[in-house]
Amino acid sequence: MTPFVYEPAVYDGTNASLTSAVSSDGWPEIGKRYRIPPRCGVAVRLHEGQFLSVENTHGTQVCDFWAYLAADMGQFLSMSHCRTRLQSVSPKIGDVLVTNLRQPLLEIINDTSPGVHDTVMSCCDWPRYQLLGCTDYHDNCADNLRMALAAIGLSAPLVPDPFNLWMNIPITQDGATSFQSTVSSAGDRFDMRALADCIAVMSACPQDKNPINGEDAMPSELHFSVGT
Amino acid sequence: MTPFVYEPAVYDGTNASLTSAVSSDGWPEIGKRYRIPPRCGVAVRLHEGQFLSVENTHGTQVCDFWAYLAADMGQFLSMSHCRTRLQSVSPKIGDVLVTNLRQPLLEIINDTSPGVHDTVMSCCDWPRYQLLGCTDYHDNCADNLRMALAAIGLSAPLVPDPFNLWMNIPITQDGATSFQSTVSSAGDRFDMRALADCIAVMSACPQDKNPINGEDAMPSELHFSVGT
Repeated sequence: MTPFVYEPAVYDGTNASLTSAVSSDGWPEIGKRYRIPPRCGVAVRLHEGQFLSVENTHGTQVCDFWAYLAADMGQFLSMSHCRTRLQSVSPKIGDVLVTNLRQPLLEIINDTSPGVHDTVMSCCDWPRYQLLGCTDYHDNCADNLRMALAAIGLSAPLVPDPFNLWMNIPITQDGATSFQSTVSSAGDRFDMRALADCIAVMSACPQDKNPINGEDAMPSELHFSVGT
Repeated sequence: MTPFVYEPAVYDGTNASLTSAVSSDGWPEIGKRYRIPPRCGVAVRLHEGQFLSVENTHGTQVCDFWAYLAADMGQFLSMSHCRTRLQSVSPKIGDVLVTNLRQPLLEIINDTSPGVHDTVMSCCDWPRYQLLGCTDYHDNCADNLRMALAAIGLSAPLVPDPFNLWMNIPITQDGATSFQSTVSSAGDRFDMRALADCIAVMSACPQDKNPINGEDAMPSELHFSVGT
């Protein structure tokens, strides 16, 4: 028997992600500007052909992003498969993002920022903040993903690697990485068109132990809307 | 209800991975030199404290590598969590490799090669070869992982991103990647000590559509042994 104990949907603490859903089933009002509270996550359903516009409201905030195929949450946006397809660690406008089965899931159709995003770092989670010295629960992107899905009646079948919008992780020639502040501006937008019916999840990363969300390490809100 | 259709353990074709197990339960004979046939995968169990020595027999072969916690295969070696911990995309001697829950799983204790390994590319799979133009089944690392586990009585609960030993994927300053030949030599060894009881899986990558396994694109065998 294959032992499987880990429960990917169980969160280690709670926050307003549980009460920030766009609706009870995740379907949004088209064109409405939704808010993602600081340190929280929100999930939204997209029909094939619709686009999601994520707004870096204050310019300094990283958005951890995930997407699952609506018909099968075992199929999800996979950063490693994107990198192989794109032959790049830095997706750009026009690039098609794919699932773990290499199926087209989203296309990047607009990016008003300088295009600095991350595909190599894991999302923050409670173990990460414990390693950073926290003893009391700290909001984290993994739990935000879990709660955002729970808030629309779904459970996370796993926690995929995130597409970290606006996250600035330079990679040196010898492979070293570092956590740098975003190079985006207030109001910058990152737009993706759904190439299949999917569930998108966004987390306003609560990281306040390094400058990834600005030199003041102050996580802030994000906004988004869905268009046709 | 959360839809989950994907069956991660199901392979798209078969090869000698199904008949290349070290034993029916995956426990090896200590000190014995085992062969991984070209284009195939083998799984082996490690007790905490034991070390696995992987040998690049002919110097040109990439080894896709995975590891799962023996007590819970929902916990596995995670490249993205390693990169976050190590602040690097290039693990080196002395580095501790961690799981998706950030628990120490393996330590790199020796590497006789120049240290060029990959952590950013997905393993090859049948969809990848279909995209590369194959119409008949092509051996692939994802299926090798599935079969290697099946050969010791386990089923793959998911296909994690691999640690691609000796795989040469330079990353340029603008994030572009490319598939280059290994810079290792015949007989190079890469040794890892188990920091927890685990199941390691190795695949002699069958990629023959680019020069990743040598300029002649000829996949070859690997060897390994387990020591105390």
